[in-house]
Amino acid sequence: MAENESVTSILEGLEEPAALRRLPESRLQAVADAVRAEMIDAVSVTGGHLGSGLGVVELTVALHHVFDTPDDRIIWDVGHQAYPHKILTGRRDRIRTLRQGGGLSGFTKRSESVYDPFGAAHSSTSISAGLGMAVARDLDVAEAKAAGRESPKRRNVIAVIGDGSMSAGMAYEAMNNAGALHSRLIVILNDNDMSIAPPVGAMSAYFARLASGGTYRSLRETAKQLGQLLPKAIYQRAAAAEEYARSLVVGGGTMFEEMGFHYVGPVDGHNLDHLLPILKNVRDAEHGPILLHVVTQKGKGYAPAEASADRYHGVVKFDVVSGVQAKAKPNAPAYTRVFGESLIKAADADPKVVAITAAMPGGTGIDLFGKAHPSRTFDVGIAEQHAVTFAGGLATEGYRPFVAIYSTFLQRAYDQVVHDVALQNLPVRFCLDRAGLVGADGATHAGAFDLAYLCCLPNMTVMAAADEAELVHMVATCHTHDSGPIALRYPRGEGVGVELPERGEALAIGRGRILRRPEGARVALLSLGTRLSEALKAADQLEEAGVAVTVADARFAKPLDEGMILDLAASHEVLITLEEGSRGGFGAMVLHLLSERGVLDAMRVRVRTMTLPDAYQDHDTPDRMYAEAGLDAAAIVAKVNEVLPERKARASNVVSVARRQR
Amino acid sequence: MAENESVTSILEGLEEPAALRRLPESRLQAVADAVRAEMIDAVSVTGGHLGSGLGVVELTVALHHVFDTPDDRIIWDVGHQAYPHKILTGRRDRIRTLRQGGGLSGFTKRSESVYDPFGAAHSSTSISAGLGMAVARDLDVAEAKAAGRESPKRRNVIAVIGDGSMSAGMAYEAMNNAGALHSRLIVILNDNDMSIAPPVGAMSAYFARLASGGTYRSLRETAKQLGQLLPKAIYQRAAAAEEYARSLVVGGGTMFEEMGFHYVGPVDGHNLDHLLPILKNVRDAEHGPILLHVVTQKGKGYAPAEASADRYHGVVKFDVVSGVQAKAKPNAPAYTRVFGESLIKAADADPKVVAITAAMPGGTGIDLFGKAHPSRTFDVGIAEQHAVTFAGGLATEGYRPFVAIYSTFLQRAYDQVVHDVALQNLPVRFCLDRAGLVGADGATHAGAFDLAYLCCLPNMTVMAAADEAELVHMVATCHTHDSGPIALRYPRGEGVGVELPERGEALAIGRGRILRRPEGARVALLSLGTRLSEALKAADQLEEAGVAVTVADARFAKPLDEGMILDLAASHEVLITLEEGSRGGFGAMVLHLLSERGVLDAMRVRVRTMTLPDAYQDHDTPDRMYAEAGLDAAAIVAKVNEVLPERKARASNVVSVARRQR
Repeated sequence: MAENESVTSILEGLEEPAALRRLPESRLQAVADAVRAEMIDAVSVTGGHLGSGLGVVELTVALHHVFDTPDDRIIWDVGHQAYPHKILTGRRDRIRTLRQGGGLSGFTKRSESVYDPFGAAHSSTSISAGLGMAVARDLDVAEAKAAGRESPKRRNVIAVIGDGSMSAGMAYEAMNNAGALHSRLIVILNDNDMSIAPPVGAMSAYFARLASGGTYRSLRETAKQLGQLLPKAIYQRAAAAEEYARSLVVGGGTMFEEMGFHYVGPVDGHNLDHLLPILKNVRDAEHGPILLHVVTQKGKGYAPAEASADRYHGVVKFDVVSGVQAKAKPNAPAYTRVFGESLIKAADADPKVVAITAAMPGGTGIDLFGKAHPSRTFDVGIAEQHAVTFAGGLATEGYRPFVAIYSTFLQRAYDQVVHDVALQNLPVRFCLDRAGLVGADGATHAGAFDLAYLCCLPNMTVMAAADEAELVHMVATCHTHDSGPIALRYPRGEGVGVELPERGEALAIGRGRILRRPEGARVALLSLGTRLSEALKAADQLEEAGVAVTVADARFAKPLDEGMILDLAASHEVLITLEEGSRGGFGAMVLHLLSERGVLDAMRVRVRTMTLPDAYQDHDTPDRMYAEAGLDAAAIVAKVNEVLPERKARASNVVSVARRQR
Repeated sequence: MAENESVTSILEGLEEPAALRRLPESRLQAVADAVRAEMIDAVSVTGGHLGSGLGVVELTVALHHVFDTPDDRIIWDVGHQAYPHKILTGRRDRIRTLRQGGGLSGFTKRSESVYDPFGAAHSSTSISAGLGMAVARDLDVAEAKAAGRESPKRRNVIAVIGDGSMSAGMAYEAMNNAGALHSRLIVILNDNDMSIAPPVGAMSAYFARLASGGTYRSLRETAKQLGQLLPKAIYQRAAAAEEYARSLVVGGGTMFEEMGFHYVGPVDGHNLDHLLPILKNVRDAEHGPILLHVVTQKGKGYAPAEASADRYHGVVKFDVVSGVQAKAKPNAPAYTRVFGESLIKAADADPKVVAITAAMPGGTGIDLFGKAHPSRTFDVGIAEQHAVTFAGGLATEGYRPFVAIYSTFLQRAYDQVVHDVALQNLPVRFCLDRAGLVGADGATHAGAFDLAYLCCLPNMTVMAAADEAELVHMVATCHTHDSGPIALRYPRGEGVGVELPERGEALAIGRGRILRRPEGARVALLSLGTRLSEALKAADQLEEAGVAVTVADARFAKPLDEGMILDLAASHEVLITLEEGSRGGFGAMVLHLLSERGVLDAMRVRVRTMTLPDAYQDHDTPDRMYAEAGLDAAAIVAKVNEVLPERKARASNVVSVARRQR
């Protein structure tokens, strides 16, 4: 482990960036190399986002060397690329806990470090947040001046944003505002020609023209852009390093200049001899907003990542030497794949089926669809708002658009769902992957709120799949549902292993199903989504302990199966709803129904809703997160025992009953 | 009324655009003049949006003359400017019902006309919708070709979008996608240098540079841009008209060209001799996406509008000759004004208070704030997403940002509320004007869902003001609430006339208040927001009929006043919640609480939630809309009579009791 020792010796004493700032510049490439090796080694153990971080190692080292962090604010957009930053900001000792329960977050997080001024995980927020911080600084300075006090330090604010993230409207809104405000904000465009998938859209082509085949601006040229002279020493040192960069200045940056930014670049993001003087000049410039265009290579410095199509964007544990990932053999097909394949079948038979993804072809299964039906596949970039209304336009012309967006990302397009689709009752199909808790990606990616934010909308139909076979039928249901918008949610990860039907059959809208209803059942568990398997487990345990339990799958959160639910309420002592979502969703709709129909007056049934807690849950395995949330079989058993008063005394017995697998 | 007769005679026979297409071009200016006169006359009676429509009269006439509507799709962004379009598309006979109950919508609406291919009201959706339609057409053509069928007509799709709307990220997302897809889409940038307020942001400055002080491209030049020759006849006719346009070609459009659009313009939007040949050329061009830059004047052709600062954007009834609007003397200050003035007071004493609006300074009261504290006022343009995260950035630096956005428009920034603010527990203050039903603006502007989409969020505090005095206290509550995000909602329009406190006092978080609690009360009305006055009226009526009623104001939808609510539930036979919002909001939170605490098992209290209906309500007066929604005093009385069984027989008596005013 000579190499690791060397990494350790190089990084020793560099726990805080202040130490990095005291190092001579000549040492920084060695630090970068050590950070890169450390990150590869750590992620080989934990899994996580690798390619993005590898691409910004030199940039990270240079930023912390040049800027006075944490007083100067560095905001990493999305945060995929922040692992080198974590290693250099006091978190190296925990870097092998990345994305593990109780460990470091896979993104930036304010509660984790003062070096993370803004948490991230969804893309394209950094310019807005950075502009807020820059304006706050300007107000601080102005206020001190007005009060005759000494001016506070003029902090630098740096937003580092990838080219893929620039397709989101939010980034444009922020640029538009920043360009008008003239506040000193540094935006670093980290142009690696990749987001998760290769970026799409006209802007991406524009960046490519700017970067123009790997030729960078010379240092002299860049200094000229800033209207500054380079210090002589830098000139001399840089002269040799610069030779490769033959000063082929592209006629670029106009678009950013038109938006009020001072454009600098493109520069090679892996060349510290260029990065360091340019960053210093940017730091010391008196300009308003500056856009520094840095060209990097995702996966840089790790051969298997450089050679991979996805640049090792997200990886599981892997062998460092070979790069081979230890992909576990799945026990059942993933929901994502089942969705993609079901949608292909629907489209095979119907030329009106089209599929839309917002820069997540792999994560949503639309990559599979795209291979089968390329002309009917639309990846619009990180642009959920546009994706939804674009689908609305297609629907007005008789097409059957399936919009596949994670539950958490559909939040980006909420107004479009409401105003452009639901209000006009257009038959757009929303397919929400990653519903419920998602594990290692943590709170920022939890699909917790879609039931609440969709069930409140008139015209909307809302389904959740209880297993992968149900998903097949629900895709078929979406397909045939032409009378209005419909949403279908399903979780991240593998199915439960049930047999898949040859073809999906459209379900009756607003009808649930009863899976078991033993004679004398006193308790009814009414599940929506994949908590069904836990409900069945809980029912087994309760029956061992002498409590007969009915288990039903609501299938629809809207419209509710009123007949079934009213019947369950009328014929049981306890009715418990289960869902992988927040309050205000399915359980709330059931409560509204029961109160409205006077069932709660009937003085018989005791109703409880089991939902996600009213708190953001830190990342962990999904199972542990659901246990923490109180949504596993044990929690269901406990709830039943709590609500059936005479069970309380026997609760301890129930817990000791061996769990039977269904 | 010679003038009106002339208008009538000119427009007679022009009920459908097909007739307009048969007219000689030389007649079209007369038609435009008549449409303008008709619109001014109609809006003088109905009130509504005037300035935007006046600016596009010639453009509307030209579009319907040149394009084959409704087969060709014209999508008016926002729809403020669609009144001339309505006059020319079979709705002239109903134009004096604009925004009246049962009458024409103030926006485009699919259910109203086949000439409205996409409904609108929120801005910046037209390019996305239009791109969907254009892609649908391309798929239709490709499918026919593949099947060896005759190709369907290659419909034109035209999106008309204002310069103000171009600040929204959604428009950029759509442009970015359209520029990459190469589909034939025509985007007309209607550049009047105004949205509702003057537009802000760097893009706005860019458009101004393009338009460059009123000099337009010559026809020859525009034809050259399209790579086409003008027909000789047009050349000859245009030659004279063109004289004023001295062919001072600005070096513009680069930004659009970089985004993959073919840029044409700028052209004078009030000169039919220019518009008609250019539109024909654009129609017949074989290009991919085209951006046609048309410069218009908001309020054009009506002197009082042209002279007004807001160009008569939105007006009440007015006198056509003088332009004087018949503004009713308010009985009480508007909530918007009370909010603005309260915020000014907070900021007077605290330099950390800052205010943010997204292009609605007047509608939110931030215009008042801006006069008092200009350096702490930020109008970011139509850019709600950026507004929220920008506020988040300010909050991280110790500022106290108040983000004033209509309830319906905050839907545009939902993910930012969730991911950037609530998840990080940043103390951003959301001030939601236009909560509940809004009257003439109709379903698209109803603030119906914020309680559902905010109450489900951990860390979020949610308040609703019951009257204008409460609003003053709640602004003070927001001001002092530094421990996390807080939202405050209040309706459009005038307060109820209560005395305003000299200064606001911060309320205890999560505490409601009981307004009346007569001895022997059997019914408790638990109101959130301004339904309180109806609850009090209903209580009066019920007491006249012998039913004692407690009335409480919850103040907080989250956190709930658990003590108060549990007490009300324990001590009354009936508990009814009231809110100006959808299901899944306040009432649902109360039901969750009561079921969780076992109160519903207690076999005594009957709980009902009164919410907005699960349907989109067409525009009308707010009072009539609330009556339709079943949320006025009469509906409350009826609900109580329905739930208290022994009351049913006496219900008719209660209804006949004269209403007492509080």
